[in-house]
Amino acid sequence: MSGRLAVVGLGPGDARYLTPQAAEALEAAEALYGYGPYLDRVPLRAGQSRHASDNREEGARAQAALAHACRGARVALVSGGDPGVFAMAAAVCEAIEAGPPEWRALDVIIIPGVTAMLAVAARIGAPLGHDFCTISLSDNLKPWESVVRRLDAAAGAGFVIAIYNPVSRSRPWQFGAALERLRRHLPPETPVVFGRAAGRSNEEISVTTLAAADASQADMATLVIIGSRATRVIVRAGRSPLVYTPRAAAEVSA
Amino acid sequence: MSGRLAVVGLGPGDARYLTPQAAEALEAAEALYGYGPYLDRVPLRAGQSRHASDNREEGARAQAALAHACRGARVALVSGGDPGVFAMAAAVCEAIEAGPPEWRALDVIIIPGVTAMLAVAARIGAPLGHDFCTISLSDNLKPWESVVRRLDAAAGAGFVIAIYNPVSRSRPWQFGAALERLRRHLPPETPVVFGRAAGRSNEEISVTTLAAADASQADMATLVIIGSRATRVIVRAGRSPLVYTPRAAAEVSA
Repeated sequence: MSGRLAVVGLGPGDARYLTPQAAEALEAAEALYGYGPYLDRVPLRAGQSRHASDNREEGARAQAALAHACRGARVALVSGGDPGVFAMAAAVCEAIEAGPPEWRALDVIIIPGVTAMLAVAARIGAPLGHDFCTISLSDNLKPWESVVRRLDAAAGAGFVIAIYNPVSRSRPWQFGAALERLRRHLPPETPVVFGRAAGRSNEEISVTTLAAADASQADMATLVIIGSRATRVIVRAGRSPLVYTPRAAAEVSA
Repeated sequence: MSGRLAVVGLGPGDARYLTPQAAEALEAAEALYGYGPYLDRVPLRAGQSRHASDNREEGARAQAALAHACRGARVALVSGGDPGVFAMAAAVCEAIEAGPPEWRALDVIIIPGVTAMLAVAARIGAPLGHDFCTISLSDNLKPWESVVRRLDAAAGAGFVIAIYNPVSRSRPWQFGAALERLRRHLPPETPVVFGRAAGRSNEEISVTTLAAADASQADMATLVIIGSRATRVIVRAGRSPLVYTPRAAAEVSA
């Protein structure tokens, strides 16, 4: 068997964030699989087949890519950001564990990328400069009570919180409920960052406070960072503010 | 003022992980600042001055780079991994907030990179495929009680935990104490990953269990990932195992 599956992190979208390792794997692939808008970011190359699928079809997409690679092809499965953070790498592992024995024998390589929270943080300062948690608000795949418990634990113990997938058409109320929950733990002036399309031409980054944050500021492509009690904002005349969490944080918790 | 400070994430070390944006900023710099071993990874270029400093001197290094840029130079301050995760971006923000007004007027750009936990995770599967926390075990900059409280909160609420800076010469016992603490919350068979120099020629990645994990397996350059109750190991004949945390995690907590 000479096939190979590369699970490739594209980073935040702009080509300046694509690592040479990822670019090489895309170039070498005979077949590309991925969510349509991510595939559209990959330059076309002659002789390469493309297999776009819908956002919700991670499991089926992983299975199709594994089966194709097992037939001897060099396959790239593209993922936005980093494949290991709420993206395709876990879906591939799930498929391998549940799939036929030959999938375990396949050469699988996972190529990391700059995930959204790192890209957004870099554009606004260093909000993730101290201990932080990374939470997906999607409750398609876990009970909402679990999300709430994790928000309580994270905010109560002094973690900064990066929120992926705050909102979707099928989950309209969760992000508002999460903000309400976090207001129980954190002061009104806690900095909150909304980031969208970081580093791309349509980038939108904004800073507000937990008191003023409104769920309508986020959509499914927004990454939200909720500060801790230690997170600070530096106002700069004529420049955007810097939001950062100091390396030294003396206070223990909420 | 025409100076500029770029805080540049080098990624895990191998050039295949260096983004084009980071490579460009390094190429354009007139002066480079950084911890010696990180500076050594940057190809030499004529006309570029180099200012290496010790690991512990983040604050002074940030100040020196800011002052140099304020004199009109294009300065790059290099950081391992991503500058925003336990690295130089927060030190720069701290220096700007405490420093002279002209530092707030300076053009500062932070260039993200692949941080160690993403590189290690990619080499072993998808252990960060569900909600996770990122904690530095250094208590130079925070009280140990704060570390313990965060470990309790994270493990108790079902987060996977990525640990940076587990050990140093001045902190010999903390990582062992952290493992002991986590054993109160998590079952003995919980997967634990030790990763060092991910993606480099001297890479060392190993998988064990929380029961078998020994503090002597880590040094200051090791990244440790502690699974949650949902984290799984796929054994593969003739290949290294895959460690992953499924996207769907039904159980709520320890």
